[in-house]
Amino acid sequence: MAESRSAPFDPATDAASIAPLFLRACRREPVERTPVWIMRQAGRYLPEYRALRASHDFLTSCRTPELACEITLQPVKRLDVDAAILFSDILVPLPGMGVEVAFNPGPQLARVVREERDVTALRVPDPHETTPFVLDAIRLIRRELAGRVPLIGFAGAPFTMAAYLVEGGGSKSFSALKRLLFGAPAVADHLLETCASTVARYLSAQVEAGAQAAMLFDTWAGQLAPADVRRFVLPAVRRIVTEVRTAAAAAGTPDVPVIYYAGEAAGWLEMAAETGADVIGVDWRMPLDMARRRLGPSVAVQGNLDPAVLLGDPGVIRRGITRVLDEARGHEGRGSAAGHIFNLGHGILPDTPPEHARLVVDTVRELTEGA
Amino acid sequence: MAESRSAPFDPATDAASIAPLFLRACRREPVERTPVWIMRQAGRYLPEYRALRASHDFLTSCRTPELACEITLQPVKRLDVDAAILFSDILVPLPGMGVEVAFNPGPQLARVVREERDVTALRVPDPHETTPFVLDAIRLIRRELAGRVPLIGFAGAPFTMAAYLVEGGGSKSFSALKRLLFGAPAVADHLLETCASTVARYLSAQVEAGAQAAMLFDTWAGQLAPADVRRFVLPAVRRIVTEVRTAAAAAGTPDVPVIYYAGEAAGWLEMAAETGADVIGVDWRMPLDMARRRLGPSVAVQGNLDPAVLLGDPGVIRRGITRVLDEARGHEGRGSAAGHIFNLGHGILPDTPPEHARLVVDTVRELTEGA
Repeated sequence: MAESRSAPFDPATDAASIAPLFLRACRREPVERTPVWIMRQAGRYLPEYRALRASHDFLTSCRTPELACEITLQPVKRLDVDAAILFSDILVPLPGMGVEVAFNPGPQLARVVREERDVTALRVPDPHETTPFVLDAIRLIRRELAGRVPLIGFAGAPFTMAAYLVEGGGSKSFSALKRLLFGAPAVADHLLETCASTVARYLSAQVEAGAQAAMLFDTWAGQLAPADVRRFVLPAVRRIVTEVRTAAAAAGTPDVPVIYYAGEAAGWLEMAAETGADVIGVDWRMPLDMARRRLGPSVAVQGNLDPAVLLGDPGVIRRGITRVLDEARGHEGRGSAAGHIFNLGHGILPDTPPEHARLVVDTVRELTEGA
Repeated sequence: MAESRSAPFDPATDAASIAPLFLRACRREPVERTPVWIMRQAGRYLPEYRALRASHDFLTSCRTPELACEITLQPVKRLDVDAAILFSDILVPLPGMGVEVAFNPGPQLARVVREERDVTALRVPDPHETTPFVLDAIRLIRRELAGRVPLIGFAGAPFTMAAYLVEGGGSKSFSALKRLLFGAPAVADHLLETCASTVARYLSAQVEAGAQAAMLFDTWAGQLAPADVRRFVLPAVRRIVTEVRTAAAAAGTPDVPVIYYAGEAAGWLEMAAETGADVIGVDWRMPLDMARRRLGPSVAVQGNLDPAVLLGDPGVIRRGITRVLDEARGHEGRGSAAGHIFNLGHGILPDTPPEHARLVVDTVRELTEGA
């Protein structure tokens, strides 16, 4: 492993025999260019997605393997990204836990979890029973992709999932969640453990079904002070990383990388590396050179262009991409930085012109290929 | 000045002859204990505020000097904080610029500013003409305070003000604002300059009327990537710091400190010191020892307890305060750290028990006094 990381990449001999570009970057192995995909690349900014959604509601699209597969493949075809990510939502496991969810279009939970008895009433679902459609979708997508690019499976991280369960939807100040954390920490711990058990089983099942990377979205982790992140956020993530690794090894795919995306983590980024994840996804609120310095050499980074830059003109987009690539390289040299996956710092905005998404992919390729 | 900063404080000889505790801490001068006040200390969590608001709407309360004075003094009386802050709102100058604002309860602007002609139509108001009630309130409050604690005046920072003008209210992704920044930067610059001119005059007038410190709230600064903060946020702040200083000197009060509060700034905190502000206010998303290290020795810091900690029990609150004080001291010794003003990292939450706010003040005093 140490040798493969430092050896230069030789496309003439290496390209055909080794793992896909995206997976090599996750493992900090040599790459011929910087891989690129886009968070929420399957979604509302794409006319083909809106066309499909005109006749299928959001949850039906998530719960029907053929639809989830079609939507997952849309950006692969249109943008030529280096990875596909399952079309789904981080709240898809909630009904299996006992909490129904509606999307109007933001999520609305049928009930909130705020007392010990609410937590006790939650189930840790068997993903094969409660979300078989997700596993079927993964198998179908893998077949349809036929090796073109790897498929990323994902789940919400326990803290973010707990935030929704306590708040009943989105929130500005997360005061109900924090009232639980600071006022009834034992109940909060029980809830976080229940979410962690659910996510560990759910994400492990995705890997067993064929997901080639496993990503945890911790959108709301940055709502806490660093000491509280250490107390309430990271232990559950660490546990999931370990359990998913174990499941991947048991399934004969020990190399499945785990990606941990933590929003607004600039105040405690070094701690994110302690989760054991292979890749840390970072938002656009910190420079990538600072992120890499603070994360250290043992993890790869994914990010971190402000999604709103794609609302600007092509010159602005190119300058933004150039800056991220420069920072990823530590402002040294040209070409591809080891252990960097280009992405936005958050999901692509619904009013983004699709041709600007394609421009991102093409520009990253142009600026890092063969340099 | 250098001497006063390093000399130990001698309460027997110094206390009566020198500036108030809060102002000395802003200037990094010796203090006998850590001063404390609470962002949004005058507001909805106080029953006496709700009682007054039952018969006066929010804008009327801001625009009536006697009401603004009464509300400003409520937390001084109840909590015994070390500073008063004018009861007002960062959007109070907008009608003078030509944009009416309603509060229901979040702000709703009568129109949005998105084109060059919208910016051209804005006025840079004379605060004596359009917001005389603010200046009258300051004079009245100073009289009523009678030197008990200093009075902080404030304004929204230009970027945050521009965010409201472009979005027309609050926003989740600020995509209209960012579309302007990235799609029409010349228009954005014009808007930011207009806001900077407005704020510079408005805050200078507050200092001339008697505000003893001038605070800029840049709640939304952290929504941009660091390089864009440098481009769009900081130049306007720097200009205001300079102009307020000049106005303060001309008014015979050259020592008025300028406080710059930047939300979600953990990714670019060192740049906040470049604004020239005397004090940097930081939210709870980064540890205060990291903040002090990155800001360097020439500025004071204000913060940074998560407001939601006040929803916990007294033990949780005490532990949270202890942590902030420890971090402010760099984990060395006891007592008061030079150049630290204790505060929350954001406004106090409306559902906070008032006795918990008082507990914060008492605990900071107990843990830093005479140690």
